[in-house]
Amino acid sequence: MHRTLLAVSLAALIAGTPAFAAETKASPAMVQSAASLRDQALKDETGWQVLESLTTEVGQRLAGSEADARAVEWAKAKFKALGFDKVWTQPVTFPKWERRSEHGEVLGAHSQKLVLTALGGSPGGTVEGDVVRFDSLDALKNAAPGSLAGKIAFVDVIMPRAKDGHGYGIGSRVRTTGASAASKAGAIGYVMRPAGTDWHRNPHTGMTRFENGVKPIPEAALSNNDADQLGRLVKLGPTRIRVALDCGFNGTYTSQNVIGEITGRSKPNEIVALGAHLDSWDLGTGAIDDGTGIAISMAAAKLAGGVQRPQRTIRVIAFANEEQGLWGGRVYAESQKDKIRDSQIVMESDSGPGRVYEFGGRWSKAADPAMAQVADLLKPLGVAYTPGKGEAESEMGLMQDAGSAAGAFAHDASRYFDLHHTPDDTLDKVDPEDLRVDIAAYATLAFIAANVDGSLGSGTLPAPEKPKK
Amino acid sequence: MHRTLLAVSLAALIAGTPAFAAETKASPAMVQSAASLRDQALKDETGWQVLESLTTEVGQRLAGSEADARAVEWAKAKFKALGFDKVWTQPVTFPKWERRSEHGEVLGAHSQKLVLTALGGSPGGTVEGDVVRFDSLDALKNAAPGSLAGKIAFVDVIMPRAKDGHGYGIGSRVRTTGASAASKAGAIGYVMRPAGTDWHRNPHTGMTRFENGVKPIPEAALSNNDADQLGRLVKLGPTRIRVALDCGFNGTYTSQNVIGEITGRSKPNEIVALGAHLDSWDLGTGAIDDGTGIAISMAAAKLAGGVQRPQRTIRVIAFANEEQGLWGGRVYAESQKDKIRDSQIVMESDSGPGRVYEFGGRWSKAADPAMAQVADLLKPLGVAYTPGKGEAESEMGLMQDAGSAAGAFAHDASRYFDLHHTPDDTLDKVDPEDLRVDIAAYATLAFIAANVDGSLGSGTLPAPEKPKK
Repeated sequence: MHRTLLAVSLAALIAGTPAFAAETKASPAMVQSAASLRDQALKDETGWQVLESLTTEVGQRLAGSEADARAVEWAKAKFKALGFDKVWTQPVTFPKWERRSEHGEVLGAHSQKLVLTALGGSPGGTVEGDVVRFDSLDALKNAAPGSLAGKIAFVDVIMPRAKDGHGYGIGSRVRTTGASAASKAGAIGYVMRPAGTDWHRNPHTGMTRFENGVKPIPEAALSNNDADQLGRLVKLGPTRIRVALDCGFNGTYTSQNVIGEITGRSKPNEIVALGAHLDSWDLGTGAIDDGTGIAISMAAAKLAGGVQRPQRTIRVIAFANEEQGLWGGRVYAESQKDKIRDSQIVMESDSGPGRVYEFGGRWSKAADPAMAQVADLLKPLGVAYTPGKGEAESEMGLMQDAGSAAGAFAHDASRYFDLHHTPDDTLDKVDPEDLRVDIAAYATLAFIAANVDGSLGSGTLPAPEKPKK
Repeated sequence: MHRTLLAVSLAALIAGTPAFAAETKASPAMVQSAASLRDQALKDETGWQVLESLTTEVGQRLAGSEADARAVEWAKAKFKALGFDKVWTQPVTFPKWERRSEHGEVLGAHSQKLVLTALGGSPGGTVEGDVVRFDSLDALKNAAPGSLAGKIAFVDVIMPRAKDGHGYGIGSRVRTTGASAASKAGAIGYVMRPAGTDWHRNPHTGMTRFENGVKPIPEAALSNNDADQLGRLVKLGPTRIRVALDCGFNGTYTSQNVIGEITGRSKPNEIVALGAHLDSWDLGTGAIDDGTGIAISMAAAKLAGGVQRPQRTIRVIAFANEEQGLWGGRVYAESQKDKIRDSQIVMESDSGPGRVYEFGGRWSKAADPAMAQVADLLKPLGVAYTPGKGEAESEMGLMQDAGSAAGAFAHDASRYFDLHHTPDDTLDKVDPEDLRVDIAAYATLAFIAANVDGSLGSGTLPAPEKPKK
């Protein structure tokens, strides 16, 4: 846009906003600008270009791996190339976990390879033992101490597919708590049906942590196909397997949160923050988890801040090491703890590239009119309005817990857990049209939040009923 | 069935068949028996049980591997358990090819792992070089001698999906002839987009053979996702990769064709033969290729020969080492070359578990009435009649070339090449209902062929226009 035209449109926008509104509400001109922005986003290729660039040029970016540093450099350069006027970093230090090799096999008369992957946090080691199958996590947790001595525990629970992704609650609990339960009962190893909904011979990795005082044991996820196979073999008779994992913690590593800003024109200290995590698991190229989030955040911020410089600062945080425990998110939240009232809103995209179908979140009652305006703007995208429902995801959940207003978009997760944490998390799985719709939704919210007069309530909201983390 | 009832029904069957028919045609009673058999097959679980047993208890069974011998023992035991009254073997000797490990990676600024698998017949070796991409096989074949010195050739052709599987003609040509062309132009290695239609990070292996006098070079197939990625990287600039394959030929191995028979009552020397191959590639468990064929053949023969003992012998051949060049098929065809007139018909299932949709093949004009009766019996299964179209598959193609009458069933191959020769060739991919329909079709043809008076024309048919192999 020509600079003169931009100034005129900016003036119109400001003129339309009453100075001391009892309610936070956008002017008609601002709503009109937001509608144009939304429609522009539906034709914009920035998000796809960001996603293709990250997943192709960096590829996998396991926290602490050689690619972690390349991802940080990539993010800094990309923010600059996209026109963010301020780019800075925050150091994030964490224990470095490495995967070097992994093998599984059935021994004896039915000798065959098992496709499996070490779970994040697993110690290395080679174990051989008879498999004891449990058809629920509770059954394993009820195993008597010592009852699994010399055995390898196998939890065989199928994770249900769901649009809202709720099946992951079940699957991830098997992953995060199973190995501790197995170890407490004396098992020498732990394998699980994966926290994933596909049948494509791809195991799903993911983080685990052993309870204090519990002896860490090698732990791995099978593919769903291999879990089927192991279940059939166990039914035929005693089944001995070998799990050989070369992996484990190895010192510490310091990565960076990479932060890009489009500085606000009139309220530069007030922040509209979009977040996503820059790290990924190492099996795929991190396209859906969370390259998509990086693409959505960068593209939506650029769109929302690019047409006419916003009143508030629009900030994108590319977080370090989400996968192994929100390490970057905790550093960021700590850095913001005295500035919660300046956090106009936070939002995060970390549930894949599925099309956004609900918009909700948490803000003051006074902000309802503005958020209803956002909801109206999103209606043509097929997004339902669910005020009070939904929470900021992942790292931004920490900001919400600290009192920030938060926007929450529900993405269709029906296919997300087919791919999540697998080798199959690759660029071809992202639908460019869905990605554009998602970006349009985030950009619309960011634009209104950055320009509307009045706070959305950060620092004045009642404490959440149950802290998220 | 009670023995007395069986004798009565058998008498009816024989009485209904004129002794010297000018045309080969089944009696109404025989057609009625075939219809009952077909309907029985649609409720029978034998095929699924065979398939589950083979893929679970043996798993992968690469020709010459430790599992090859287990598969032979499995087949002998299974024939006996199913009531085949004669079980015998034919030794089959071939060069043993072994896969030990395989790794691929992009080097330099965009360092990342590539998912790939060695092609069967590849020599071992580690090569590093810049990638030269070709968007067609012809483009590689036209490369000047020496022009690829020190380079790794990459043929990047997408194989089309098709119900009749014709895309495999394109994909398999890239696989079987690409590495020779690359070597002739001086390349030190060869990688290809796989001969496969899925996007699930699973590479497709398969056999290759270097032309005489051409220096063998390491050759591998990427997954389609990795081919996408390599294509994008090459577009960004010079891309150096490392391909490290530990594999190769290692002496010879003697496996066995395993043959089970239900001996014919009145014409035991005349043979209705159903074939499939017992070996598989090593990445999956050989469910669709060709566990399905083994299951269809064993179950269809048992059904066709089990209700009332057939006039002719029904024989099932579980062939050794099809994948590396029809080794078992050639031994079998050689053993039958002087008995072609005794081959009532051959049929083979080696295109997966997709539902049968066409029945055709090759037989004498005199046999048309009987084959039309088979077609009528298959109509309720949704199988179209395409006389003169289709050929016996794989090993049985050799029998057809030698002059045998042949039945040919077209299976829906729309999804077959998503899975073919990949880790994803596992039991869960087979639809039990499709499998039952397939077995019903093969059993119906086998039953009529085994009991109808008169030959289907083996040894009197005109030579095929173009030998199949």
